[in-house]
Amino acid sequence: MKPVTIQTVSYIGTGNVATHLAGGLGKAGLKTDSVWSPHKQSRDIFSRLIQGTAVDRLTNISLYSDLYLIAVPDDQINKVVAAMPEVKGIVVHTSGITPLKAISTRFVNSGVFYPLQTFSKEKEISLTNVPFCLEGNNKEVLESIENLANKISRKVYHVDSEGRAILHLAAVFVSNFVNHLYHTAATILEENNLPFDLLTPLIEEVALKVQHLSPKEAQTGPARRNDLNTIEKHQSMLADFPEYQELYQLITRQIRKHHHE
Amino acid sequence: MKPVTIQTVSYIGTGNVATHLAGGLGKAGLKTDSVWSPHKQSRDIFSRLIQGTAVDRLTNISLYSDLYLIAVPDDQINKVVAAMPEVKGIVVHTSGITPLKAISTRFVNSGVFYPLQTFSKEKEISLTNVPFCLEGNNKEVLESIENLANKISRKVYHVDSEGRAILHLAAVFVSNFVNHLYHTAATILEENNLPFDLLTPLIEEVALKVQHLSPKEAQTGPARRNDLNTIEKHQSMLADFPEYQELYQLITRQIRKHHHE
Repeated sequence: MKPVTIQTVSYIGTGNVATHLAGGLGKAGLKTDSVWSPHKQSRDIFSRLIQGTAVDRLTNISLYSDLYLIAVPDDQINKVVAAMPEVKGIVVHTSGITPLKAISTRFVNSGVFYPLQTFSKEKEISLTNVPFCLEGNNKEVLESIENLANKISRKVYHVDSEGRAILHLAAVFVSNFVNHLYHTAATILEENNLPFDLLTPLIEEVALKVQHLSPKEAQTGPARRNDLNTIEKHQSMLADFPEYQELYQLITRQIRKHHHE
Repeated sequence: MKPVTIQTVSYIGTGNVATHLAGGLGKAGLKTDSVWSPHKQSRDIFSRLIQGTAVDRLTNISLYSDLYLIAVPDDQINKVVAAMPEVKGIVVHTSGITPLKAISTRFVNSGVFYPLQTFSKEKEISLTNVPFCLEGNNKEVLESIENLANKISRKVYHVDSEGRAILHLAAVFVSNFVNHLYHTAATILEENNLPFDLLTPLIEEVALKVQHLSPKEAQTGPARRNDLNTIEKHQSMLADFPEYQELYQLITRQIRKHHHE
């Protein structure tokens, strides 16, 4: 094939990722063909809002879309791919951890369209600032989806399946794991009748700091300056909480090791 | 004493905390008396910018300031307090982990003026949004420093020494420890020639999410949804990195425990 200007999309899946992408692609002027989801209500709402046709079976999706966007849970990708009809348009998935090969063995034109961001129902997010990591099974596919990505984001990257898995892993550290530390702090405060609100300005500032400083340069605190006095006080405060103590000890040990050995 | 309107300040210490507070207090119309720091150059620059008098010995600081603001490293507070002359003005420290008693045994009017934020030289920060946690050795002191805090911040709290130590501990989790996770992710990417910039929009969004959602509700990811397949893939990618693996396993175990037991 030659690189195409993607003008029509069918959506496979109607969750957070599909919803946010459909919003952005709609604004960029793309038309929707079919919308499939295993959940009747979701596909009905989604297809009405985005002006596409809800289909109840994957075999019924349009055969003539320029793009098929698969945005289902990772463990559903294989099943969905197997159930789709043969199509000539470009089929992409949006998963970090799933290799291109999961779809390229089935479709002539296939790729990956991975937005490296956390999406939630409650919160609008501008796609302009979302990094899109792209891969294609041939260079025409890659060029076509790159042109598309450039319409909705300023941050478009080529990343192969191996690199994407690494990114996904690193993303778990800075999102899910970071959020677990927020949760731990929230619980410590709650147990002492102190409001979590006291920490939110600090949380925001720590995240903003690494937008222009490397995390290594940005590191501060008792472990960084090897302040054993404070570390000891903190540990004794955690004496009755083995779970928090385990976190405290492991991370403190690692920071001290990096900065003082 | 009666509650006073604090109009003059002497600064003990000229680091990040003192610099940011002096900027805010200056804008709020306060006059500077003395400026002390063990470092000649810092106290000279600081006193010129804030229009105070640099003094090389603590015994030479003004005896008539309304407020003495001690902002030195935690392990220097005792030494500084012992070296100060007797004064009638209010003496406060700005430390999270240090109890009020570290200064209240020495001065008739003493308190704590703890800004719960991370300050860096490179980055201006608006004090309006910084939570100030206040304590006084009598209610006149507390009222006086509360009036002062209200001039520079919208977020003023009364917190006793015990509560402040808890806050300081929780702050370590959401700042120093979170930053260590950023650093770990940065290293993983660096080892694979991927730019850290790819993660900064995600980092920002994760921090913004808990400004209006509890961290427990905000939790997502493989551990949260018990996706053993992905967890296993991630672990095998970390096989050669015992340090990252230890973090991965501990935090994954804790998230799974909270959400699935």
